[in-house]
Amino acid sequence: MSIDRTKLRWNGWGWAATKDALAGRDDIWKWLAEELGMPALLATPARPLDEIGLPEPRLAARDIAALGDIVGTDRVKTDKYERAFHARGRSYHDLLLLRAGTIDAAPDAVLYPRGAEEVQALLALCDREGIAVVPYGGGTSVVGGAGAVRGDHRGLIAIDLSGMSRMIATDPVSLTATAEAGIYGPALESALRAQGMTLGHHPQSFEFSTLGGWIAHRGAGQQSHRYGKAESWLLSARLATPRGALATEEFPASAAGPRLTDLVLGSEGAFGIVTEATFRIRRAPKLSDYRGFLFRDFASGTAAIREAAQEEIPAAMLRLSDGDETRFYRAFSRLGHARRVADYLERAYLRLRRFPDAPCALIAGFEGDEEIVRDARRRFARIAARLGALALGQKPGQRWYRGRFHGPYSRDPMMDHGTGVDTLETAARWSRIDALYAAVKGALETAIVDTAPRTGAKGVVLCHISHAYPDGASLYFTYIFPRALDREVEQWREIKRRASDAIVAHGGTISHHHGVGEDHLAWMEAEKGTLGLDVLRAIKKTLDPNGIMNPGKLIPN
Amino acid sequence: MSIDRTKLRWNGWGWAATKDALAGRDDIWKWLAEELGMPALLATPARPLDEIGLPEPRLAARDIAALGDIVGTDRVKTDKYERAFHARGRSYHDLLLLRAGTIDAAPDAVLYPRGAEEVQALLALCDREGIAVVPYGGGTSVVGGAGAVRGDHRGLIAIDLSGMSRMIATDPVSLTATAEAGIYGPALESALRAQGMTLGHHPQSFEFSTLGGWIAHRGAGQQSHRYGKAESWLLSARLATPRGALATEEFPASAAGPRLTDLVLGSEGAFGIVTEATFRIRRAPKLSDYRGFLFRDFASGTAAIREAAQEEIPAAMLRLSDGDETRFYRAFSRLGHARRVADYLERAYLRLRRFPDAPCALIAGFEGDEEIVRDARRRFARIAARLGALALGQKPGQRWYRGRFHGPYSRDPMMDHGTGVDTLETAARWSRIDALYAAVKGALETAIVDTAPRTGAKGVVLCHISHAYPDGASLYFTYIFPRALDREVEQWREIKRRASDAIVAHGGTISHHHGVGEDHLAWMEAEKGTLGLDVLRAIKKTLDPNGIMNPGKLIPN
Repeated sequence: MSIDRTKLRWNGWGWAATKDALAGRDDIWKWLAEELGMPALLATPARPLDEIGLPEPRLAARDIAALGDIVGTDRVKTDKYERAFHARGRSYHDLLLLRAGTIDAAPDAVLYPRGAEEVQALLALCDREGIAVVPYGGGTSVVGGAGAVRGDHRGLIAIDLSGMSRMIATDPVSLTATAEAGIYGPALESALRAQGMTLGHHPQSFEFSTLGGWIAHRGAGQQSHRYGKAESWLLSARLATPRGALATEEFPASAAGPRLTDLVLGSEGAFGIVTEATFRIRRAPKLSDYRGFLFRDFASGTAAIREAAQEEIPAAMLRLSDGDETRFYRAFSRLGHARRVADYLERAYLRLRRFPDAPCALIAGFEGDEEIVRDARRRFARIAARLGALALGQKPGQRWYRGRFHGPYSRDPMMDHGTGVDTLETAARWSRIDALYAAVKGALETAIVDTAPRTGAKGVVLCHISHAYPDGASLYFTYIFPRALDREVEQWREIKRRASDAIVAHGGTISHHHGVGEDHLAWMEAEKGTLGLDVLRAIKKTLDPNGIMNPGKLIPN
Repeated sequence: MSIDRTKLRWNGWGWAATKDALAGRDDIWKWLAEELGMPALLATPARPLDEIGLPEPRLAARDIAALGDIVGTDRVKTDKYERAFHARGRSYHDLLLLRAGTIDAAPDAVLYPRGAEEVQALLALCDREGIAVVPYGGGTSVVGGAGAVRGDHRGLIAIDLSGMSRMIATDPVSLTATAEAGIYGPALESALRAQGMTLGHHPQSFEFSTLGGWIAHRGAGQQSHRYGKAESWLLSARLATPRGALATEEFPASAAGPRLTDLVLGSEGAFGIVTEATFRIRRAPKLSDYRGFLFRDFASGTAAIREAAQEEIPAAMLRLSDGDETRFYRAFSRLGHARRVADYLERAYLRLRRFPDAPCALIAGFEGDEEIVRDARRRFARIAARLGALALGQKPGQRWYRGRFHGPYSRDPMMDHGTGVDTLETAARWSRIDALYAAVKGALETAIVDTAPRTGAKGVVLCHISHAYPDGASLYFTYIFPRALDREVEQWREIKRRASDAIVAHGGTISHHHGVGEDHLAWMEAEKGTLGLDVLRAIKKTLDPNGIMNPGKLIPN
């Protein structure tokens, strides 16, 4: 196992030993309470594992022995920690339940296979024996993609891929690499960097998510503008299925019918388990240049990103916060600092330049050799200037870069303080972005007020555009709200439902890079159509005739 | 019908009125005979239609009337010309049979629907009545994609999409356009150019092929380096199927499971008929700059293209001929001209520069605004110079550009002169290109000698790289050979089989942009695997439960 599960938080984010950076910062909680229209935030600590009961395992000793015959008995885990750790992913909904100790389903056993053959043997056994399988990569799903759903099978195991983390090959001529799917982000990148290469896929979950997971849910790294989403860099894959191994096409740009590789992308463990992948690599960038811009409003910032995407400016990242997100993070970062002279000067300067009250910050990142970086930076700066933006230099860019994986760490302390925090994302054509943005933001704000624990309470709804394409872009919403402690799950469901309905009504996809899992099932028919769902069901039936693979995810019954 | 079928050659290429540019050029046929090791080339004219019999139609008058009820009786064609025209595509194999008058299958009727609803109604009728359907776009398939295969159905119709050629919408903000699938290349491009836009998809068949056809077989335009293959520019599609209409996802970069759009790409009419497509458009290029380079050998030219693709130099086209192709076309273009002083000087210069005897010509095309063109040209020229290539200026580029759609026109005169000519293409990772090139070239040369009509006869086998990707490239082979007139089809099958076996054995795909049709069926299992084919069969079964759609293509039984 490349990452020791016992050193990770089983009901939260990251290493158990990581210190809470917000501990003792009462000023933050006071400020946040004001933002949420609450008199104060309540203490809502998580229950420790030893106070929590897990459902009895259903598999018999002979089942466990048969599983152990395949992977070795030391790689079959049935202890409480492992079962609780693998009971769910890490969505807000998951955390609510895990922290409350409401664990009504958990895998009977957790298996740690050492390679594709063992995975294949496990699936054959489970298929024969009617045991459901949840594939577990990093377990960082935020849409209910890794929950212990047994369906109508007699038992359930989690197959944890973290024991499959070898680099298999690099082809320096074709600029491709092949690795086992359970490799984590940092291990993969450092193996590639040692050869002067990079995949460049750095999602916010980078430290704790895996190659296979990125593929199975069509993930996007923060620098997808340059390095692409999983569907851009995946070249071929091997999928272990109950019907046997499926090896997808190993050539570029074939015209020999639909591409099997495309069916692995977004399959979320429902067709099988990605055991190995070959992907495009690039020479590691010589330079990395992140810098800030301040736009007058969201519309002009959006226009700048659109132009850059349509002119194919090779920026690594263009990340535009809306007015509320810009304001919120600036206020947060100033907490605990005396107001500085620089702040006054900045404010005066913005007023002089007739900037409105809610300007929008954009972080632009450029990576590559000197020529690429200089060229992309110059071209983007020209667009930004024409649209009236202020260049803020490298400082804000460097600050963003340093904190780029920190977001999820602040979720646990917020959960400890009666505060709900969740994110969702969508994507749409450029011509629909404005209306979609307004509709989802409005839906979230209203739903939070409507479900709030008291009158006057409200949410903080933040949005950024962080992935752009010639035809459209993603919108990423973060919403923070005071929890209604007597009906937390219902509150979350209501907010989520209203936002999702707004997405569908305004031509957005239900997910840009988090995937479907259990949480987006209800909107899949709107997205794929009845016939489209039948096609997905037929593919699943072919590869997984008995429906043992990750039941209850991706495809509605 | 946007193109009048009666004005096109039913058994060859292009407008019937187009003059044979090679007529009376005895010097050419004498030279070609020498190239092929033949004492002379025989006259092998095609049989005129009035000497040829077609199989009796199987559908009854009431069937024809029912079809006419849907599209109008004037849009149901049952005359000999229409049936013969739609009996086959335009592969070498097709032409052999059409020219010999061996038409053992033809559609009972040809239907010209006016829109998606009529197509949908036709499919519903045919599904109910057990009538097979061949979707017919431009009919330019060169792999047996449009042949009148009835399977075990009681009748067969061709649905000709040329009556569905409307532009439906343009979204200038998202840079997308939507059109009916039957629109031909020239009509589509002129509609877009009128708005200052382009799709940029210009295959050699551009004049006579359709949007829907490009999508259904994952086509590539000559400038795919910049504008992408169909799988790059297709954003969403509508597919009429026997089970109803399937509308694919209308957003960018969704993570909501596998993408239905990807299943339409390469579906070759076996799942349904593409009725409408939305695709990425770009601003029409302000500049177009095509120029020639001469490389010392195929390896250094290949390296230059690889570098350009991996560095993402935004060239529109990089097209490298191997030594034989360079020599053959130069010799051909000099026929009928007295040897010019310039030729002597050129030869002397090349000797001085120590160029080998078989240098390789590369045509590089650059399209876009001034900055893009200048930048891409400068970056590519730098690579070419470093690899020892000579820059030949714009003249060779302009010559190539003028003749870029002419290739297929010379096939008919060659067929009139006892000469066989066919093309095939593959693609592979860069690290496999050299071995694949040698193997396929060797297989073609040997197979032609082995199947030749007389001892000493041989083929001309030409190759170019014309589509490149960061991970690999396509190889496009043209092979010209003296026909064994007593066993023409067997001869072609043997040559094709040996080349295809060599492709598969050396890690290439059976097609880069021509598709599967009937001709590549035998290699699909090697490419997709048994389980992979089961997946394709399951998709077909879901959308076309009775197997009426384009029987005998794409998926082996």
